[in-house]
Formats: sequence, C-alpha cells, structure tokens
Amino acid sequence: MPIQPVVKYPPFNVVRASHVEYAVTDLARSRAYWVDALGFIATEQTGDALYLRGLEECNHHSVVLRQGDVPVVNRLGFKVFDEDDLDRAAHWFAQQGLPAAWAEVPHQGRTLQATDPLGMPLEFYHAMDQTERLLQHYGAYCGTHPQRIDHINCFTPDVQASHDFYASLGFRTSEYTATEGTEQLWAVWMHRKGSTHDLAFTNGRGPRLHHIGIWVASITNIIHVCDVLSTTGWLPSLERGPGRHGISNAFFLYLRDPDGHRIELFNSDYLTVDPDFKPIRWDLKDPRRQTLWGAPAPKTWFEEGSVFAGQAVRAPLLEAQPIVAP
Amino acid sequence: MPIQPVVKYPPFNVVRASHVEYAVTDLARSRAYWVDALGFIATEQTGDALYLRGLEECNHHSVVLRQGDVPVVNRLGFKVFDEDDLDRAAHWFAQQGLPAAWAEVPHQGRTLQATDPLGMPLEFYHAMDQTERLLQHYGAYCGTHPQRIDHINCFTPDVQASHDFYASLGFRTSEYTATEGTEQLWAVWMHRKGSTHDLAFTNGRGPRLHHIGIWVASITNIIHVCDVLSTTGWLPSLERGPGRHGISNAFFLYLRDPDGHRIELFNSDYLTVDPDFKPIRWDLKDPRRQTLWGAPAPKTWFEEGSVFAGQAVRAPLLEAQPIVAP
Amino acid sequence: MPIQPVVKYPPFNVVRASHVEYAVTDLARSRAYWVDALGFIATEQTGDALYLRGLEECNHHSVVLRQGDVPVVNRLGFKVFDEDDLDRAAHWFAQQGLPAAWAEVPHQGRTLQATDPLGMPLEFYHAMDQTERLLQHYGAYCGTHPQRIDHINCFTPDVQASHDFYASLGFRTSEYTATEGTEQLWAVWMHRKGSTHDLAFTNGRGPRLHHIGIWVASITNIIHVCDVLSTTGWLPSLERGPGRHGISNAFFLYLRDPDGHRIELFNSDYLTVDPDFKPIRWDLKDPRRQTLWGAPAPKTWFEEGSVFAGQAVRAPLLEAQPIVAP
Amino acid sequence: MPIQPVVKYPPFNVVRASHVEYAVTDLARSRAYWVDALGFIATEQTGDALYLRGLEECNHHSVVLRQGDVPVVNRLGFKVFDEDDLDRAAHWFAQQGLPAAWAEVPHQGRTLQATDPLGMPLEFYHAMDQTERLLQHYGAYCGTHPQRIDHINCFTPDVQASHDFYASLGFRTSEYTATEGTEQLWAVWMHRKGSTHDLAFTNGRGPRLHHIGIWVASITNIIHVCDVLSTTGWLPSLERGPGRHGISNAFFLYLRDPDGHRIELFNSDYLTVDPDFKPIRWDLKDPRRQTLWGAPAPKTWFEEGSVFAGQAVRAPLLEAQPIVAP
Repeated sequence: MPIQPVVKYPPFNVVRASHVEYAVTDLARSRAYWVDALGFIATEQTGDALYLRGLEECNHHSVVLRQGDVPVVNRLGFKVFDEDDLDRAAHWFAQQGLPAAWAEVPHQGRTLQATDPLGMPLEFYHAMDQTERLLQHYGAYCGTHPQRIDHINCFTPDVQASHDFYASLGFRTSEYTATEGTEQLWAVWMHRKGSTHDLAFTNGRGPRLHHIGIWVASITNIIHVCDVLSTTGWLPSLERGPGRHGISNAFFLYLRDPDGHRIELFNSDYLTVDPDFKPIRWDLKDPRRQTLWGAPAPKTWFEEGSVFAGQAVRAPLLEAQPIVAP
Repeated sequence: MPIQPVVKYPPFNVVRASHVEYAVTDLARSRAYWVDALGFIATEQTGDALYLRGLEECNHHSVVLRQGDVPVVNRLGFKVFDEDDLDRAAHWFAQQGLPAAWAEVPHQGRTLQATDPLGMPLEFYHAMDQTERLLQHYGAYCGTHPQRIDHINCFTPDVQASHDFYASLGFRTSEYTATEGTEQLWAVWMHRKGSTHDLAFTNGRGPRLHHIGIWVASITNIIHVCDVLSTTGWLPSLERGPGRHGISNAFFLYLRDPDGHRIELFNSDYLTVDPDFKPIRWDLKDPRRQTLWGAPAPKTWFEEGSVFAGQAVRAPLLEAQPIVAP
Repeated sequence: MPIQPVVKYPPFNVVRASHVEYAVTDLARSRAYWVDALGFIATEQTGDALYLRGLEECNHHSVVLRQGDVPVVNRLGFKVFDEDDLDRAAHWFAQQGLPAAWAEVPHQGRTLQATDPLGMPLEFYHAMDQTERLLQHYGAYCGTHPQRIDHINCFTPDVQASHDFYASLGFRTSEYTATEGTEQLWAVWMHRKGSTHDLAFTNGRGPRLHHIGIWVASITNIIHVCDVLSTTGWLPSLERGPGRHGISNAFFLYLRDPDGHRIELFNSDYLTVDPDFKPIRWDLKDPRRQTLWGAPAPKTWFEEGSVFAGQAVRAPLLEAQPIVAP
Repeated sequence: MPIQPVVKYPPFNVVRASHVEYAVTDLARSRAYWVDALGFIATEQTGDALYLRGLEECNHHSVVLRQGDVPVVNRLGFKVFDEDDLDRAAHWFAQQGLPAAWAEVPHQGRTLQATDPLGMPLEFYHAMDQTERLLQHYGAYCGTHPQRIDHINCFTPDVQASHDFYASLGFRTSEYTATEGTEQLWAVWMHRKGSTHDLAFTNGRGPRLHHIGIWVASITNIIHVCDVLSTTGWLPSLERGPGRHGISNAFFLYLRDPDGHRIELFNSDYLTVDPDFKPIRWDLKDPRRQTLWGAPAPKTWFEEGSVFAGQAVRAPLLEAQPIVAP
C-alpha cells in the first residue's frame, strides 16, 4: 500500500503552499500577461521583480516574477504556523541531512531555505508583509478575477519518494493514480490546508514544476478569460481546456505565460479536512482521471515543465507510459 | 377582448426600438456611471453630448446623453426597414392628423420626428452611421457587459389607447395584465423584433418613460455589476433586484442613473416571432407577475419615471391600485 | 460579390426554422438520450414516434424522432406567417418547376412538402397544435435545460446555389466564409427570424444535415450537461467542445445522438433584425472562425452528417480544403 | 480588545462543524422540501428519521430530520481529529464543570454529548459511517446541487461569552461586528476548518439556532433554486435574498424549511487558514455588513430562530439595536 497514514503531529506545522518565484526573461511582457490580461494584483514592482497576489490574498504576494536570463523556477514557498515551527523545521532538516539555511527574503520574516530529497528548492516562513484584501474592491476586478494561489504541481522522477517525504511532514493524500497490478504510485495529490491539494506530483523527468493552480470563484470567469486571451493577442497562451478533470473534480484551464510557465485556473474541488478521508484511487488506464469529458490533452501538457534554478533533471524511475487519449 | 389581432401589412415597417435621447445635468458624472461603471461603449463625445452603444451594436448609438438643465427624455427612436418606409410613415402620420416633421439628426439619415396620440416624442429613421461591432473585443468588456438596447417601457395614462396605436403599426402583444372582471388593460408588452418587447406600457401618470431595457448575456454579469456598483460609490443607484419577473421571465436588475433615469439590465426572455403566438394574460392581483420570487419592489419603482421634454403629464384613466406586495 | 441584397417582399413569408424529423433505429434509446439526459420535453409518444420540444416552445414539437431502419433525416420544417403564405408558396414552387405537394401531417394544419434545388426535403406550414409553454415550470428542468430549436446547418455540394435559393425566399446573410482571391462562398449563415441563423450551409458532400442548433440560456447549462453526459454512460456522445466559435460568437457544444445525428447546444449569438446589417466575412484560412480559442475540431465533425431520406449525395463543387487546425 | 489570540494547541482538536439534528413535525413534507426541491441526498430513511447529505459528502449525514411534536433543534455535531481527542474532550468538559456524557448514536462511533456554557447541546465524534461521494454522479444532481454543510449560526444572549468559550477550543475569528465606542462584540464568525466559519454567533434571545449554511458551487445554482421553489409550491420558503453579505462576502439565499428551520445557501467566501489572519471588524452601524447591495432583510430574519430541545431562552445582555435597513 503506497499511501501512508496521516501524521497527527508532524515535525513542524506547514499551513499551506504559499508562493512561487519565477525567473522571467521580459518583465514588462510578463506584467502585460499576468496583470493586464489575467487580472492579478500587482502589489509592488521593483527594478527587477514584480510581486503579484490574488483578489482575496492579504499576503504581499503569491507569485514573484524576477527578471532573469532563462525562464526557470527559483523557489517554492510554504507558510508555517508560527515562529516556533521555523526552528523545528531547521532542526528537522539538519536531522535528515538535507540542505537548509536561514535567508533574508524581502517582505518575509525569518525564512528557512531548504532542498527536498529530489532537489526541489523550498522556503519556509511564518510572517509576510500584509496588504489590503481586495476581495470586495469589485471595481478592481479584471481578467479571470484570480482569487488566490491554491497548489503547486510538479514532475518528479520518483513519485513514491516525493510522496513519502511530504507525508512525513503531515501532507495528506486526497487522490492518487496507481499502475494496475504493481500498484506503483504514478501521481499523487497532497494537502495541508483541507482542499484537494497544496502539492501534487506526477511521474516524469524532474524535478520540474508542472504548474501552479490559481483558484477562481466561478466557471464563467474561466470561460471569459478564454475569450479575452484569444482576442487580445494571447491566443498561443491557451494550452488546454477548458474542461473537467476526473481527479479533484476541477473545472480547469491551462495557460502558458510568455516564458512558458504553466498556470492552471480552476475551481470545483472539495473539502478534505476530515482526517479519516480515504484517498481516491484512479487507475492509470482510466482516461476520465485526466479528462472527464474525453477531449485529449496536447503533447506539450504531458511533456513540458519549468526546471528549478540550478537543479539537474533526472529521468523517471517508472517507465514512460503511452499518453492517454480518448 | 382588449388585444387586437396581428397586422400583417402595417402602414410602415418598424424594425425595432433603436435608441433613446436623455437630457442629463452633469455629462461627466453620467459618463462615469454609464461608461466606467456599467461598461457602455462611448462611440463619440461632443461638447454637449455622449453617444453610447452596447457591445454587439454596430449602430452609432443606442443611448444619447445630452447636457441639459433638467433630467428629461428628449426622444424615443425607432428604426424602419428602408427609405420607403419613412415616406409611408410621413404619409400615415399626416393621415392621422398627428404632428410629424422631417428633422436633421446627427449620425442618422432622413429622420421623421412625430408625436404619438398620448404625447410621446418619437423619431423614425432607416440609416444610422455604422461603427465596429465590439462583441468579440473581449478585452474591452467591463461593468455588466451591456450588449444591446432591447426595449422601452413607459407609463401611459391610457394603456388601451397606447396599445391600440402601436398595434395598428404592427406591434404585437406578448404579455399583458388585465383587471379582473372588467378585463381592462393595465399593462401591455409589445414587440416588432420577435422578442418579448420593444415597447411596453403600464397604467400611471404619463406619458413618462419608466425605463429602457438593456440585454446582457448572462445572469452572472448582472450579479457582478451589483458588486461593482455597491463598492465603487454607486450603491444608491441600485433600486430593485436582482430578481425574476413572472412577466417575460426576465432576470432583472433596476438601476437609476445619476439623474434618476431608470435602466433595466436583464436577460432570460424568449422568442415571439410566431404570428400565432397567443399573448399571455396575467391577473393584476397575481403577485408573481411582478416578482416570481416574492420580494417586494420599492415604492419609487412604482411611482417614479422620466418625463418627456415639453410634454404634460396626465393622471391615468384607471384608478390607482394598491401596490402589490407579498 | 456572392451575397445578394435583402429581399423586402419575398414570394412568401417564412417566419423561422421550426422542426426536424429524424429516423432513429431505437426509439427507447433515443428517448433516454434526448429526454432523460438532455432534458427535452416529450410532448407525445405514439407507437413509432416521439415528439419533443424545448422549455420555451408552445409548438407541439421541434424535433420528431420516428422509428426507422436507417438513421436519416426525413424532413426540415419551416413556419410561414399565415395561411395565405402557403398558397403563395405552392404557386411559387410550381413556377420554379420544383416538386411540391400538399400533405397531411399530424399536429399541423395545411402542409406543403417540397424539395429545394439541391434535394433537401422541406415542409411549410402555418398552424401547429399548441401546448403549454413550460418556461416557468422550473421544477421540470433537467439536463441542459434545452430552450428552443434555433437553426438547421447543412452540407451542400454548391453553397452558392443553396445561398441563392434561400436568399430569393428572403433569408438574409449574417456571416459567411469566402475563399481568398476567388471569393467563392465556402459557407454561409442565413436567417429569417433576426438571429444569426435559421439555416446555414457549408461546402461538402451533400445535401446532408450537419446539425440542428438548440438554444440554451446560459453557458453553465452547457458545462453541466458535459458533466451529466460523461458520467451517465453518454461520454461517446460528446463530439466537440465546449468552445467558442468566431463565426456567430456561439458558445457551443456538439453532441451525437445514439444514431449519430449531431446536435449543437449553444448561446451567445446576437440580434440581426436590422435590414442594413452588413454580413461579416471570414477568410477560409482564418482559424478563429471555427474556434476562437484554438482547440482543433475532430475529423468526424468536418466529415460526418445525416443524409436525407431517399436523397442522393453529391461531391462538392469546390475542391476539399485541408481541415483547419491550430 | 474582545478577540482573543489563536490557540495553537487546543485541549482537543475539533476539525469542523459536521451535522445538525432537527425535530420536524411532518417527515414526508420535510423530505419533499429537502430532497425533492433542494436536492439533498437521502442516505437513509428510518421509521422516524431522514438522514441527508450533500453531493460531496462521504459522511453518512450532515442533516438529520427526526419526527417530533415541535420543531426544535436536538443537537449540533462536531467532528474531532481522532479517538484520542474524544477522551481529551471528556476530560476537559469535566474540568470545566460542564455536562458531558458518552452516548450511543446511530452511524457514529464513540460520541460525547455535552452542553456549552450558554446551553447549546453539542456532540463530538470521530468516526461516522462512510457512504459514496456523489460529487461526480452528475446525473443525480437536482435542485440547488447542495454540496456540503459549511457552518452553524446561532443567536446567543452573550456573544462575548460564546466567543470566549469556542476561542478556548481553538476556534479562530474571521470577522466580527462591534458596537462603536464600547467595542462590545455584537456578532462573531469563527472557524476551525480554514473557511470563514464553522460557527457564528449574533446577539439575540438565545441560545437559538439562526441557520445552517450549505455551500453550493455557483451563484447560478442559487438563482435556479429560487425559480424552482417559487414555481413548485415553495414560494413561502424564500425568506431573504439572493444577495451579497458584506461579512464573509457570501452570495446568499435564506430559506425556511416547512417547520421554519432556516437554511442559508451560499458561496463566495475565502480561505482563512493563515494563523496570522487578522479578523475583519465591521461597525454595527455599517449597513453593508448585512447587505452589500442595500436591500433590507425582513423582520423575521432578525427575530426568528429555532430553539434547542429542552433549553430555556434568555434575553440578550446587550440592548436590542434598531434593525439596520437602507
């Protein structure tokens, strides 16, 4: 059985997936996409970085776009419950023999930067500068009305190893895909905050970031942004959808930002706070897990992702499977 | 039986209700409301006038806001099928002994201005300057995404007389309210274009304009503009709704512009092109005709309206009835 | 210039596309699809036929499913303004040397059955049995909440000839696709009722029916039926979409009923009652006319259609073009 | 300052508000309302009880309707993290000198029934019979597509006392209303599961249940059920809305079941998992906290509620304030 029991008292208390920092090659173009077209709120722009947040977010940012030479992902950010959890995290990473060091990060309090066993660059913090929640500033809504970051989805060369690491930190599994017969983990959706996921892993060359998931309040917001993007010069950014995943029940749209970083706009998932929630198993051969309605995903969606800065990418342990198509 | 049979060959061919010209007392404030908050397209602004249209409209305008000293309605505009219909209209008004005269109107071809028997100032035209349809310029959408003018709703002191006049011009009745027993017409919805109405009349002090109806594509557009208006300083402009009318099945929201001119945003009506369509009768005592869901309308909605420039207002022939409330 | 001017006084007055009669091979299975899954109202079922209508329709039916050995289309129905138009139609078809004969058709008054120059079987009637409009019987809504038949879309081997025939009957063109340079008509959308279409033609082996268009009130009704169909055993009936057409601005979903007859669920088109409406030209090479958002249509959608009972199918005059795909 | 800091390690770990048991006077009539009209799933019906759940719920029930002589609320149910928390709860209630006893409850594992200091009857459990999640059984959706229980809202004679009790159990405050100057707590919204609330209290005669909140996935589901209820004989059950609360940003509709028990259908709230979330303060005089769009609530909504079985109701400590109306 590849899914481990829930850890009631994890070594430190991760609250949720909080933010991602991307390197982008043209900050002005990225701003046109994320802010003008998609409707993210620009909390602050510095000489080389743009800090974005969604309409319900008080945190200073959930997405950082930093000018760079190559389009990579610099770091994945997680919020912990309080200061004490940061010290417990530092202790724990040391115990595991994993790299971890305190860092000065603008707009954040004490921050521990660490690397997971597969090579993903993480940071943990408790306090971030707070800004005004704009949820009821409806006059500022545009694009798809992006409400908040919801999750981070990654390729990993070893899904079981990634799962086990985060399970030991108290991430719980909501759904997973297993190979028939051998019951090997092919993909897994894990959460801390009580929704379908904070963090998901799929078998593939990695570690790489597949996408971040942005929660929006309604299906019609997603349909509308398809119309906006396709008629304002951003048609190529529409990669897949809209459609319905079997897994997580998400109504989804996948976009590629001007540097190819993938964004999922979605809603329609469900609550997973019950500790006795039984993870939902999908067979790798069941096409409905990918697309409830049967429309095939493009090859790029299965193969492309953003590498992490300075991290080597390895081939997956499990052999590649044919892409599922109806 | 107060509803007359459909006239197959009317004296001239009115295509639809086309536009309304309002006098407003502060053009800048009106622009902030109609354009910035509601999302109308400003086709053109001159020294004393603002020409507006909806997202699907090619006509130069469907609403004209003209600077004036008092907030009145200057004129109601109707499009006819072709040039020939204008001459036939001129001939017909002369025959009826009703005032009618050719006028020069910016952006319109030959225009016949006339007055109906109740004193409503009308104009008929065939050709208007054409502009670009912005229906697929989704990047320009804002506010409630107003799509097009749909209808004109008026108070009249004599519903039967108003009905008979427009029925003789080929307007067909889709729905009506009658008093019990005496079967007197209390209100009537009439159309030329095959929807529930181009023109509607309700018993009341008149002639006055009750509202114009703006068609929007979805209920969610109407909900969203409630949020926008209530959080951008326009809360007082929300007069009634959102709700569902029994009559016409409209999902509605009633607004008052900065001068008090009433606007209905709505959708969900139905097709009425069948000539054998049997008008739907509602009893005056049936509260569901006003509000399917039972919420009362405010007193202002029953009593207030915009007067026509230079036109006296008369008391209604039918005695006032108690306001229907659940 | 392939688009003819609007005919103000056509030889007889067609009001709208009204109904289609299909032959289906398993009436019970068809009922499960059209009624239980899609939500059509079953007005009446006889030994060998099922009469269906949408939620706003008073007409006895807009779709007839008749038990047959092979899945074909028996006839396309059009409503005329009044009895007089039927006699004028009979006279006109005789003048044109086209087959036309009076027929007894259940639930209809006098009915003229005729064949158009390309071999499409038509019928014209004025009076049909009336039933109760269920638009406000919200408790009876299910499936996609189908509201009414809107249009009929056909393959024709000669788009110009089909266009010219219906243009002479007063059908007006809203949009069309032309080949570059030669400006030959590749596809055309024509209407009588003031919406984007009652009848459309695309170049292809024909005459064949491509689909009927069913109007639904909102995008969310279309999304919901995708979920319903894909989880109640009807996944294979989802052929294309949901998506947005450039042409007509329709938000669409294409389905195949159990016999392969294609149904489009759609909304978001616009008003076309203005006689000076200038038809919108799309270049055959513009991929956005098919799919504003860029997702390719499956090959079946371009190639398959329902033949008319007893009618031979011819190759198109214009050479086949490569299927447009992003 | 009336809002206490967040308790990181509460005496026992309450996961969320889980279920409510009502006494109803006519079980068949209640079933017609909750199941046939609203669309709740009937997990099981016994001789004297009906067990209901929402579409995403695996728990056997979130609402129990039990035949009774008078319409009261029997008990409010909360889920705890695991078995150990039940023992810790028993210990803690004993320490506080509050009534608490183990009870046998059908479909639940070990259950501790207790009474809070204000007299509200509670029960805590960890394990409930699990059923199939129907979230992707879209063919079973009807009514408003109720998805899950979200929160419980009560009148209390002493908001500060109620707040303090639940704050000590680790409930965190998301929003609150305070009187001006004296800064007395007038109403408070508290949660365990990371949404705007599991439990809310308003100043009033109490303890009484004001309503339970049912989360639905979209605004259009709420609009649709207004249409369904008003045309299937349940018009009187529509008490207030639809509208938008300032507090919690909820798009809401308030219903009264056949016994007068109040149900809120809602969505559009936001995530509150961040421990440093700063509670939002509303002034008691700000009308937007109740209704962002300005429409008044009926008097019944302010005054009526369901009493708890066998519990006396006391007058509120704070003097009654005038009902806020625009």
